[in-house]
Amino acid sequence: MTSAEEVGRVAVLGTGLMGTSIAMASARANCDVSGWDRDPETATRAAAAAGFDRADSMAEACVDADLAVVCTPLPEIAGAVVAALAAGAGVVTDVGSVKSRVVADVGESAPAGDLHRFVGGHPMGGSERSGPEHASASIVDGIIWALTPTGATGGETTRRVADWVERLGAHPMELDPQRHDRLVAVVSHLPQVASTTLMGLAAAEEASEPEILLLAAGGFRDLTRLAGSNPGLWSEILLANRDAIVDAIDRYRTRLDELRALVADERADDVEAAFASAKAARLTLAAKPTVRAGVGVV
Amino acid sequence: MTSAEEVGRVAVLGTGLMGTSIAMASARANCDVSGWDRDPETATRAAAAAGFDRADSMAEACVDADLAVVCTPLPEIAGAVVAALAAGAGVVTDVGSVKSRVVADVGESAPAGDLHRFVGGHPMGGSERSGPEHASASIVDGIIWALTPTGATGGETTRRVADWVERLGAHPMELDPQRHDRLVAVVSHLPQVASTTLMGLAAAEEASEPEILLLAAGGFRDLTRLAGSNPGLWSEILLANRDAIVDAIDRYRTRLDELRALVADERADDVEAAFASAKAARLTLAAKPTVRAGVGVV
Repeated sequence: MTSAEEVGRVAVLGTGLMGTSIAMASARANCDVSGWDRDPETATRAAAAAGFDRADSMAEACVDADLAVVCTPLPEIAGAVVAALAAGAGVVTDVGSVKSRVVADVGESAPAGDLHRFVGGHPMGGSERSGPEHASASIVDGIIWALTPTGATGGETTRRVADWVERLGAHPMELDPQRHDRLVAVVSHLPQVASTTLMGLAAAEEASEPEILLLAAGGFRDLTRLAGSNPGLWSEILLANRDAIVDAIDRYRTRLDELRALVADERADDVEAAFASAKAARLTLAAKPTVRAGVGVV
Repeated sequence: MTSAEEVGRVAVLGTGLMGTSIAMASARANCDVSGWDRDPETATRAAAAAGFDRADSMAEACVDADLAVVCTPLPEIAGAVVAALAAGAGVVTDVGSVKSRVVADVGESAPAGDLHRFVGGHPMGGSERSGPEHASASIVDGIIWALTPTGATGGETTRRVADWVERLGAHPMELDPQRHDRLVAVVSHLPQVASTTLMGLAAAEEASEPEILLLAAGGFRDLTRLAGSNPGLWSEILLANRDAIVDAIDRYRTRLDELRALVADERADDVEAAFASAKAARLTLAAKPTVRAGVGVV
């Protein structure tokens, strides 16, 4: 630590798009950064892009680190957190899109004495692109960054990570892990499902109507941009948040069925009222100052 | 006509966002433009924005017009087309988002001798905003502009309108009216329904989870931008294209159910395959050169 309070050296474990972006934002905030990736080629490209000290192992990256940030694929997060705690990183967080399972897995596999140094995290920003070459410190600018402490998490741990998040230019927001997962199922995971489903449908129609995508304008492009996201990453996210996702899809489908019935029954006033209500909510969203419009969410 | 071929004077009937944008693009293409709107206040604002000659009636706007472009709300299109034909506009087109009903209504109410001078149209561009103050000639830049001739439409009529569309900077594309409606139900109307439904769901959740929209990042914003569109306009569009919309919603829901089942059954490889297929289609779409990314579709 450069002081008792401030994070000075950051270890980034997993240097894909998010890890490399966080490395860049940390360097911008005057942190020293070390980085590691299980794929040496990815680590080399990330180090070239972000200018961090490349380490050959997680343990080496964590030497003298005040904070380790685990940015690996979801299935590897808990293991990497446990390894970073064992390697002596001061505090440890992660950026996984689903929190209940990560927190539970860490709770089961880390020594009880280490747990107070871990807090789960989820920066609500990202991109539909992958890999260190699409990384940018700006990805964290102005975004909400969820932190999900449990009863085992030390208050000092959450405070340190929150301070560092603010130095990166983002807004920390504390949430219970289960509540986090329920909310992101609706506002992050369901949009991905809706986008992929729409793109899949249009592509299927294209087999018999080759010109259909020529008629796809800006609105269709907006709705399907997320469909370009990393399939493996999203398969992991959806399965890790399975129950909340299935519930969110069911509620979405119920509303879709209601709107379908209004159209089928030609209830013009009710269709207009449904659209007016959604429009009012969208205008309120557009006015929310703390959440940045711009690149997508992972 | 400035020549036997080229449209020289354009009458724009209905000067909301699309009408005013088309007036601007026509002026940019060196056409003389007259404009009319049933709301004098809207016409005044549009004339100030686009610099056209403001007319006090549809008939006055159509005097000496080589082309009349009907940009009124959907329910008024057929009546305005008939009036423009009667007023002596050389050829007449419209910009309604649904074509079968417009074409049928015009066919039933216009004198048979006038019908060869009408061709339905639908520029595949627009904005979720409304009103002449949000108009821009750039809304038509590079977009596909569907033209839907019937057996009654004169070939010369379609050719003249297509030439004018090209001069405006857009790409004319001939389509059967019913086929147009089936295809836009999937790539234009369904995205609007999906966007409004998602925004409506998140707003409903907000009642019990006031912080949910703080977690809404760029992906959610992309998916719900269309939800800010004009409710009255969309109620008219959905009801005018009712059968095709209901069918598109059903096919969307079937795919959504399939993906839900894969997630519920934790079939990771199949979920990933569904996402990979949609991603591949989205990358193909992104590479299509003739369709512009950018502002939304109406």
